[in-house]
Amino acid sequence: MSSDTQSTSLRSVLVVWAHPEPKSLTCEFAGLASRTLQSLGHRVLHSDLHALGWKAVVDGEDFQQRANPERLSVAVESGHAWRTGTQAPDVQREQDKLMAADAVIFQFPMWWFGMPAIMKGWIDRVFALGLAYGYKSAGNSFRYGEGGLAGKRALLSITAGGPEADFSPRGINGPLEHLLWPITHGTLFFAGMQVLPTQVVFGAGRLCREDAQAAQQRYAARLERLFDEMPIPFRSQNGGDYPDKHVLGADVAAGREGFSAHVVERGEDVKTLIVPA
Amino acid sequence: MSSDTQSTSLRSVLVVWAHPEPKSLTCEFAGLASRTLQSLGHRVLHSDLHALGWKAVVDGEDFQQRANPERLSVAVESGHAWRTGTQAPDVQREQDKLMAADAVIFQFPMWWFGMPAIMKGWIDRVFALGLAYGYKSAGNSFRYGEGGLAGKRALLSITAGGPEADFSPRGINGPLEHLLWPITHGTLFFAGMQVLPTQVVFGAGRLCREDAQAAQQRYAARLERLFDEMPIPFRSQNGGDYPDKHVLGADVAAGREGFSAHVVERGEDVKTLIVPA
Repeated sequence: MSSDTQSTSLRSVLVVWAHPEPKSLTCEFAGLASRTLQSLGHRVLHSDLHALGWKAVVDGEDFQQRANPERLSVAVESGHAWRTGTQAPDVQREQDKLMAADAVIFQFPMWWFGMPAIMKGWIDRVFALGLAYGYKSAGNSFRYGEGGLAGKRALLSITAGGPEADFSPRGINGPLEHLLWPITHGTLFFAGMQVLPTQVVFGAGRLCREDAQAAQQRYAARLERLFDEMPIPFRSQNGGDYPDKHVLGADVAAGREGFSAHVVERGEDVKTLIVPA
Repeated sequence: MSSDTQSTSLRSVLVVWAHPEPKSLTCEFAGLASRTLQSLGHRVLHSDLHALGWKAVVDGEDFQQRANPERLSVAVESGHAWRTGTQAPDVQREQDKLMAADAVIFQFPMWWFGMPAIMKGWIDRVFALGLAYGYKSAGNSFRYGEGGLAGKRALLSITAGGPEADFSPRGINGPLEHLLWPITHGTLFFAGMQVLPTQVVFGAGRLCREDAQAAQQRYAARLERLFDEMPIPFRSQNGGDYPDKHVLGADVAAGREGFSAHVVERGEDVKTLIVPA
């Protein structure tokens, strides 16, 4: 990967954010990302989900031309609507932005250790079968590192109410990157994206003005390296670490279980790491 | 805990479910739970989120009498509305059911390794500050095993599209109970509930009729033990394993990190396990 070319060439970045209060830290950070990226020469696309009045819920209204009018399977109808160009217009618009983006930033307050419902509903509706999962080419099935969104980067930028200690390796909540695993690994990397380590502001409800400004400065500095930073080295499905495409091979992360076994370790032969061109 | 008294006494169970298709496995399972529990003599309360037209998104409409009209903090307004009896009527109705229930069953299809947005929005709106988190008594702060929902049981009953191997200890998705950790530990146990091991149907999109019937029989048999089963032995915040309320004490699960360290091991002195009376 040539960092020089990447950091100086124009890219498109989609910023998706979710907070009902325009003066919230979430909206401030989304605005900061937009200004910073534009000043770096990038094109910025926006999805302010509350301003859009985003429909969070998948239901029959989303599928006006049903493959099966008798029984609504969300996967089946999502794939059918995507293939036949009969998706809901709001879903189509968001997919157009997603597909035009070289990187996507998700800015949200962590509620119950996940996305607010309005943003989960953006994933549920926009990540259609065929586009983001069930991606097939030449008869092969791609997921986890390859797929419809391959070549794009993703960054979660979040605010958390609790203190950092609670999210530390032995903290009471569990480690931050494990709590976010269903999103980073299970959603974004699943669909083929390269996911950067999460940007987080802890104790977000009790920040003084100086702390908030310091957090913004740290974030702005990090955004300059958005296309140069090393993504989390999740193991790809088809890189050799999962001989049957389902379970780690016996010699891979031998004897280990749980999420950490699916991240390439420092010093390990990086045979499965895919870095987008 | 006296199983004999528990299993024969009448209890109230709230079944919350989320699927847009009434003929879906999700709705079938919700109906099965309702019939089975009623036949056991329990009172069953229902929240069919799609039938209710449940509003998934937290926004200003939820808070008609604002504590701070200038800036919407969801935590602040949620607590204020709960304390002052000015919550949205739909939120109040769901809280009434929740508080009347001795157990809550969440039935949903796993989408992107979490709840569909409509159910995440039930948590986001119904689990108000003061009711489900930030619970205080005599100046002490309670969470993780104690709190507003203490004494209630919770069960996730889910359908998953993928095969069981993908969710096994070394499966490519990560272990099932770790993927659900933000819900079981981070939401339900956080609010004080005792959480049972997850009920799951794998490969739900490709079940033949016999497999579906077998899954229903297994579920019905399990529901008979809803009030007798041992919950997941998560460590409670105030039981002694977290001396500073934030991080595991050095002698607890020594040398271990990640989610598993927060579950009491078989054979370990069970000093922190709280079983509801």
